[in-house]
Amino acid sequence: MTTVKFVKAPTLKEKPDVSKIGFGTHFTDHMFEMTYTTGKGWHDPQIIPYNNISISPANATIHYGQAIFEGMKAFRQGNKVVIFRPLDHLKRLNNSARILDIPPVDIELVHNALRQLITIEKDWVPNKRGQSLYIRPFIYADDGFLGVSVGKSYKMYIILSPVAAYYAHGFAPVNIMVEDTYVRATKGGLGEAKTPANYAASLHAGLVAHQKGYDQTLWLDGVERKYIEEVGSMNILFKINGEIVTPELDGSILSGITRRTVLQVAKEWGYPVSERRISIDEIKDAYKKGVLEEVFGSGTAAVISPVGVLGYKGEDMVINDNQIGPFAQKMFDYVTGVQCGAEKDTHNFTEFVTEV
Amino acid sequence: MTTVKFVKAPTLKEKPDVSKIGFGTHFTDHMFEMTYTTGKGWHDPQIIPYNNISISPANATIHYGQAIFEGMKAFRQGNKVVIFRPLDHLKRLNNSARILDIPPVDIELVHNALRQLITIEKDWVPNKRGQSLYIRPFIYADDGFLGVSVGKSYKMYIILSPVAAYYAHGFAPVNIMVEDTYVRATKGGLGEAKTPANYAASLHAGLVAHQKGYDQTLWLDGVERKYIEEVGSMNILFKINGEIVTPELDGSILSGITRRTVLQVAKEWGYPVSERRISIDEIKDAYKKGVLEEVFGSGTAAVISPVGVLGYKGEDMVINDNQIGPFAQKMFDYVTGVQCGAEKDTHNFTEFVTEV
Repeated sequence: MTTVKFVKAPTLKEKPDVSKIGFGTHFTDHMFEMTYTTGKGWHDPQIIPYNNISISPANATIHYGQAIFEGMKAFRQGNKVVIFRPLDHLKRLNNSARILDIPPVDIELVHNALRQLITIEKDWVPNKRGQSLYIRPFIYADDGFLGVSVGKSYKMYIILSPVAAYYAHGFAPVNIMVEDTYVRATKGGLGEAKTPANYAASLHAGLVAHQKGYDQTLWLDGVERKYIEEVGSMNILFKINGEIVTPELDGSILSGITRRTVLQVAKEWGYPVSERRISIDEIKDAYKKGVLEEVFGSGTAAVISPVGVLGYKGEDMVINDNQIGPFAQKMFDYVTGVQCGAEKDTHNFTEFVTEV
Repeated sequence: MTTVKFVKAPTLKEKPDVSKIGFGTHFTDHMFEMTYTTGKGWHDPQIIPYNNISISPANATIHYGQAIFEGMKAFRQGNKVVIFRPLDHLKRLNNSARILDIPPVDIELVHNALRQLITIEKDWVPNKRGQSLYIRPFIYADDGFLGVSVGKSYKMYIILSPVAAYYAHGFAPVNIMVEDTYVRATKGGLGEAKTPANYAASLHAGLVAHQKGYDQTLWLDGVERKYIEEVGSMNILFKINGEIVTPELDGSILSGITRRTVLQVAKEWGYPVSERRISIDEIKDAYKKGVLEEVFGSGTAAVISPVGVLGYKGEDMVINDNQIGPFAQKMFDYVTGVQCGAEKDTHNFTEFVTEV
């Protein structure tokens, strides 16, 4: 494996008590940086001390939002450090790049640089089950002038953040509000990309949901406001009459890596699995008939997020008596088991990086 | 008028030949800065040397896009410097703030600070008709952690850029492609706000339009893909059978200050004016019947942008023989005349700032 230039931080930070720091608040000593210049392509990949970034006040991303990111995790398995499905995440980064007209990165180079960065920062990977080292690659247009156009220069970084167990107080169901006023993304928009625009569009609805006592938002499609898209920043899955059902990838929702993992494993476990359009009315009907057995989100942060209450137009559907469903529990145990090494990884979801 | 703290730049830049620099490429010696901290509100307004900004690699705007901006212009009128409708622009900034859940600014304070900044930079306001000093206020979430939520800290800046005449080679019609694949914004989204998300969503369609030989994109609504929204980053207006018609402000298009100016002046000139839903089929029908007399965009950058060709599904409508229409010409002459002082400003559109 080729290595990239490494500039060591003059002093290293004291490592925090990961159980007390929440999500994305602390960062390791180093970060990966790479620069794109029109005519020169991506160049100068290097690992440098984690530090503030200098941008022009006319920076194209601050004004016009041409940026993308990824989110994945590294885990400790005894004395080993592994990453969960890194190549799938890097391929998705390039898919987001395509949608935003950002020049794609050399996946092999970035993959190797990520492995090198994780190896340098291996002591930052937490050792307790549920904790992990969150990996955030991101790319933004770095032009310093005010024209609305595809950028000519870009920066890529990978930053690393030790994160606490998502379920610090125990794996538990959340309350979700079906959003029928605000729209996250629509067909012909950027919904399939991991890009700031989709998150900006979700902020206000998130506030409203919180004010009404819900934890997150379930998005409906922007055209008919009836087809289910995704929940908060996760994919959504339903267990209806024994079948695992989830919205199809129609261009306005993110192709989640955890979603993919869950669907693959569910099939192997013998569950019928269907990716298709699902209307909120179908969910209401299934609920009334007593066949809406489970509802849960899937994503890198929470892995599986069981839904206990689904509120729609002021009425709450209580799912599985507001208890974690057996399928969600089994899948959560399995995926987190593979991540921490307690389950045998027969799919090679995890990639060995280094010994500690 | 209260003044804000002023830190003078140690050296001043050489002023460029404005006729050669295009749009948004050069910036003046100073900028306005203000900081928001939860619990403290907006504080420390100051005018400081124009310089790069330092952000955390986990900056909330780079990752999640919680940002807004404005665009207005200052002009020379003989030995005077004026700004065009500054309070309308600052009110719109606060409307964008509301949509993005950004704390509103004190308009009086920012207005005074802007006047102070323009006074300091008065020698940067170009003296030729058509040239101007572009004013870009912007606000972005400045938190340095990776949670998807409304920010706790913000930065506001105002930067100034001398800009060449938009029509350096003469006022001339543009070719517009009606976009039926990509969507800029939809109802329930952020379309009414001046926020990076809307511009990010427009980048790819802009590329496609250019590849097909058009200058800009005309957006249709995201639901039915038939109602006209706006063009590129301007509003769109039609003259049909003597009437000035433009899409109503339905929450998914920007409430343009130039649009407002044009509608007000057109009414005073005795034209019937209508703000309503307009389908692309209605435009096609009007074209076939020979009553689509003029099509033009309105915006701060171009003021008026006559449309010579409107392409839809591979067919081109040629508007007014691809010549500037008399209404567009008259309105362009009037508004630019008010801006440069050649026309009497009976509406108080321009605000006197300083003598040079």
